[in-house]
Amino acid sequence: MSTLGLIEYQDSSPEVRAVYDDIMATRKTDWINNLWKAIANDPVTLKRTWESIKQIMGPGALDPLTKELIYVAVSVANNCNYCIASHTAAAAKKGMTPEMFKELQAVIGMAAETNKLVTGYRVEIDPQFALPFGTTK
Amino acid sequence: MSTLGLIEYQDSSPEVRAVYDDIMATRKTDWINNLWKAIANDPVTLKRTWESIKQIMGPGALDPLTKELIYVAVSVANNCNYCIASHTAAAAKKGMTPEMFKELQAVIGMAAETNKLVTGYRVEIDPQFALPFGTTK
Amino acid sequence: MSTLGLIEYQDSSPEVRAVYDDIMATRKTDWINNLWKAIANDPVTLKRTWESIKQIMGPGALDPLTKELIYVAVSVANNCNYCIASHTAAAAKKGMTPEMFKELQAVIGMAAETNKLVTGYRVEIDPQFALPFGTTK
Amino acid sequence: MSTLGLIEYQDSSPEVRAVYDDIMATRKTDWINNLWKAIANDPVTLKRTWESIKQIMGPGALDPLTKELIYVAVSVANNCNYCIASHTAAAAKKGMTPEMFKELQAVIGMAAETNKLVTGYRVEIDPQFALPFGTTK
Amino acid sequence: MSTLGLIEYQDSSPEVRAVYDDIMATRKTDWINNLWKAIANDPVTLKRTWESIKQIMGPGALDPLTKELIYVAVSVANNCNYCIASHTAAAAKKGMTPEMFKELQAVIGMAAETNKLVTGYRVEIDPQFALPFGTTK
Amino acid sequence: MSTLGLIEYQDSSPEVRAVYDDIMATRKTDWINNLWKAIANDPVTLKRTWESIKQIMGPGALDPLTKELIYVAVSVANNCNYCIASHTAAAAKKGMTPEMFKELQAVIGMAAETNKLVTGYRVEIDPQFALPFGTTK
Repeated sequence: MSTLGLIEYQDSSPEVRAVYDDIMATRKTDWINNLWKAIANDPVTLKRTWESIKQIMGPGALDPLTKELIYVAVSVANNCNYCIASHTAAAAKKGMTPEMFKELQAVIGMAAETNKLVTGYRVEIDPQFALPFGTTK
Repeated sequence: MSTLGLIEYQDSSPEVRAVYDDIMATRKTDWINNLWKAIANDPVTLKRTWESIKQIMGPGALDPLTKELIYVAVSVANNCNYCIASHTAAAAKKGMTPEMFKELQAVIGMAAETNKLVTGYRVEIDPQFALPFGTTK
Repeated sequence: MSTLGLIEYQDSSPEVRAVYDDIMATRKTDWINNLWKAIANDPVTLKRTWESIKQIMGPGALDPLTKELIYVAVSVANNCNYCIASHTAAAAKKGMTPEMFKELQAVIGMAAETNKLVTGYRVEIDPQFALPFGTTK
Repeated sequence: MSTLGLIEYQDSSPEVRAVYDDIMATRKTDWINNLWKAIANDPVTLKRTWESIKQIMGPGALDPLTKELIYVAVSVANNCNYCIASHTAAAAKKGMTPEMFKELQAVIGMAAETNKLVTGYRVEIDPQFALPFGTTK
Repeated sequence: MSTLGLIEYQDSSPEVRAVYDDIMATRKTDWINNLWKAIANDPVTLKRTWESIKQIMGPGALDPLTKELIYVAVSVANNCNYCIASHTAAAAKKGMTPEMFKELQAVIGMAAETNKLVTGYRVEIDPQFALPFGTTK
Repeated sequence: MSTLGLIEYQDSSPEVRAVYDDIMATRKTDWINNLWKAIANDPVTLKRTWESIKQIMGPGALDPLTKELIYVAVSVANNCNYCIASHTAAAAKKGMTPEMFKELQAVIGMAAETNKLVTGYRVEIDPQFALPFGTTK
């Protein structure tokens, strides 16, 4: 289900199909998940979103698994059940063990708690935390 | 500043001071940041929060730097400016480079965007994402 | 379903029925959606909420369709699935085309992303943005 | 201020400068606001974000002012003070009058209130709201 | 400061002044806080908001102090610094002691943490929690 | 359902069972709700979370029912459907009447609305709200 319906591979335009093919090739899977089928109703958004994801989630200074853990953390903080499901599965596929999963959830919960203590007590930022990388502007 | 004021080391009770000493010893620093000085008005919360943080943020299946990155990600998602400042500094101290910082922010932003696309399009969870670790209940 | 059950038209008090009748007359429909049937358990809240909605969502400097698009945007940002469903339908009824829907979602997603980039990078507000309408206080 | 400092025009690389020039030309201004100067520390993110914004916020099925109103609404819902300031200014520049501003805020507030009533009362989605555009999948 | 400036008592229209007078009489104070001066730019919103607040926050099945504690809790959860400041002050005026304040913050923090554990672990609602007041619809 | 499955009483380790027994004894019930069965996959988190909840939610300067109302309010603000269901039931068990429930929801909704008005209008905190308890630091 999705507000505009889902665009299945066999019904897709060449423009959409090219993105679908790249998703499957990049992720080494033979299926497309519903997020892409939903936004394929808007091929410009489909292409931009996929290319952004591909650029951002690839290896870099952070490895792909760490990036997936961060993605899950943001999705939990933002209450996106679809994204929690899809990125928990993606993280598991990239090597997240149950032990990692449990620690990830504990950190997310702890952060949520101290986020609120700081906010409720109206704590001012320490000058020592001003700029972590030695910049002066 | 903080709603109940800040408890400075020299003014603290033995109970609070013991936590302060453990914070400084564990973190190898010689100062206490405002979060702790604020919640020290409630020594039970101070002790519980510190012991939870110490337990959760130590090494485990995830290394301490990865945990700090996740902490920053949740704090950004939750808009906690104090926590963003303090945990960005903590992550930098544990080895986060500017390159890692930039990739972290890119992932957070991307996740926030797809979280909303999925929500706005009302995308249903694919059955393939049901249970990532092979459980059957 | 709803925590206190739903108050159906035929079971409603005259006070509630008057609101129901006004909702149907104003919206030119012959049914009442669940939000109203749920809060009808609290007739004071029902009346206040309906009168506020009626006042706010009517034509003004912004046309009713634009207001519905804004309502959908806030509901997506706030993760209210019920409100996303009901106000997406309301917007469609007031003239939102699939093309408008897609652009709406793209803007919501983009805003969510830059909201987080700004927060994570801790960007200070430019003095040029202080007061957009030339006020001086 | 920003965690990695701000990249000023005169200090920017050709890659960054090209984006800055396009921002100023597209927006018909002679200055760059801090968001861009902050993320210019990550030229890939700068370019991707600007190109996405440019694509999304241009005229389409929704006019640019309506898009700015939606951007403000999401930023208020997400508590992004920087984005509220910058996009309120952008909306004013594109024609938002004080009357429109007031109605915008009233809709945002009202949506936030009913979002919570629905959530707290645990209201189920009416079957009538399933799919607003007549799709069947 | 406020986007449209603040409407001071001596500059207010009779319509706005009547609301200001009622606020001061109801609250037994001799000044008006900035929220009201800001939305007084939109007298219809000023009147509706004040009348709603007055209706909702007065004594009922819940006493006024309990309502203020709930207001603070929601404001902390929603990161509204202005509302945290104003309603913490209002709660203190209505009898919130520092001890109550500390327990309030501890509950808010704890709830935020378990909210995230439940979301991240994707926990299904127990059938026992379906309907707390014995309703059958 | 839960990502790692649910740990039933009869399948639990002595460590987990001790927590389960304490939950049932403290709450005077004969069953364990899914939150605990889910996080029992991580016995350290189970024990820490339960001990924190037990410490925080017991009687103190605020009575247990008031604490439950606050818990529900935060859970509604944070959109945690599981927690809304479980803590609404817990509050009902501790004496929340339908009248209290309705007033609770009205306050939550109202707070959400003014939270947004203040944020959208960019209202500055009145100096009178600086420190409600007469602290000077």
